[in-house]
Amino acid sequence: MGVKLPVSTEWVLHCATTLAQLEPGSSASGAQLAQYFDLPAPYLAKQLQSLTRAGLLAATTGPRGGFRLARPAGEITLLQLVEAVDGVAPPYECREIRQQGRGALAPEDCRHTCVLAARMADAHQAWRDSLAGVTLADVLGEIPATAPARTRRLLNGS
Amino acid sequence: MGVKLPVSTEWVLHCATTLAQLEPGSSASGAQLAQYFDLPAPYLAKQLQSLTRAGLLAATTGPRGGFRLARPAGEITLLQLVEAVDGVAPPYECREIRQQGRGALAPEDCRHTCVLAARMADAHQAWRDSLAGVTLADVLGEIPATAPARTRRLLNGS
Repeated sequence: MGVKLPVSTEWVLHCATTLAQLEPGSSASGAQLAQYFDLPAPYLAKQLQSLTRAGLLAATTGPRGGFRLARPAGEITLLQLVEAVDGVAPPYECREIRQQGRGALAPEDCRHTCVLAARMADAHQAWRDSLAGVTLADVLGEIPATAPARTRRLLNGS
Repeated sequence: MGVKLPVSTEWVLHCATTLAQLEPGSSASGAQLAQYFDLPAPYLAKQLQSLTRAGLLAATTGPRGGFRLARPAGEITLLQLVEAVDGVAPPYECREIRQQGRGALAPEDCRHTCVLAARMADAHQAWRDSLAGVTLADVLGEIPATAPARTRRLLNGS
């Protein structure tokens, strides 16, 4: 029971946070990121591709190729990352049961969104607003000051 | 892909809203509610039992038995209804991948909740707060003034 985001949501958030710590212009490959967090590389690659398609990551080719942020960390929100991989569909689906069965309302009484669906949509929007208010730059501001140097050393050997 | 609440969430919200429209002391059976919305009775019965266990509905026995709200409509929130049937587990699960793989942080660096998990928890709390701010009485205040009389007529023949 209960609504669940896939385990890969955590992967995506951590990989993006990791890429946000690299020197501008540096990148890390999917294989490196998979190793960094001990994740299944093929499945992670799919998520990284979704982030690239969404314009959040840029894929570079060549021997030093890999992924980097496609824009500044202050312009990438947690909502964008989550929705890029998990989709934008709201968790509550109104199937208009108010229009079926013995109590079915007439179509003319259902021109407006069902009150219950509207309140569920409000809650989803509150969730979205919360995640839209946090950028990768905000996240970097809350990790130890020594973290980026360590991340760069482990990933880029710099 | 995407996080989904079960279809039964809509059932539960509508059944509770329906019961909130009955005369005080009146009840409706699970079979009546199933018919009212054309829902599978055995599966709906399970949801109604969950609401009863959560103290939101009261089950009465006897020939006119059934379900009624266990407390005033102003004291039952959408959050209570949703969590009674869908559980309280947050959708984002932090599996501490920051502590695994080549980039694994030392345990002493993980005494605090991961920043990403904390921000995902904030968003879940925003969703909860939104739904906790809406009672069944609020919902009744937004449906047509003629609705309760119709609901009573169809369900209790009164």
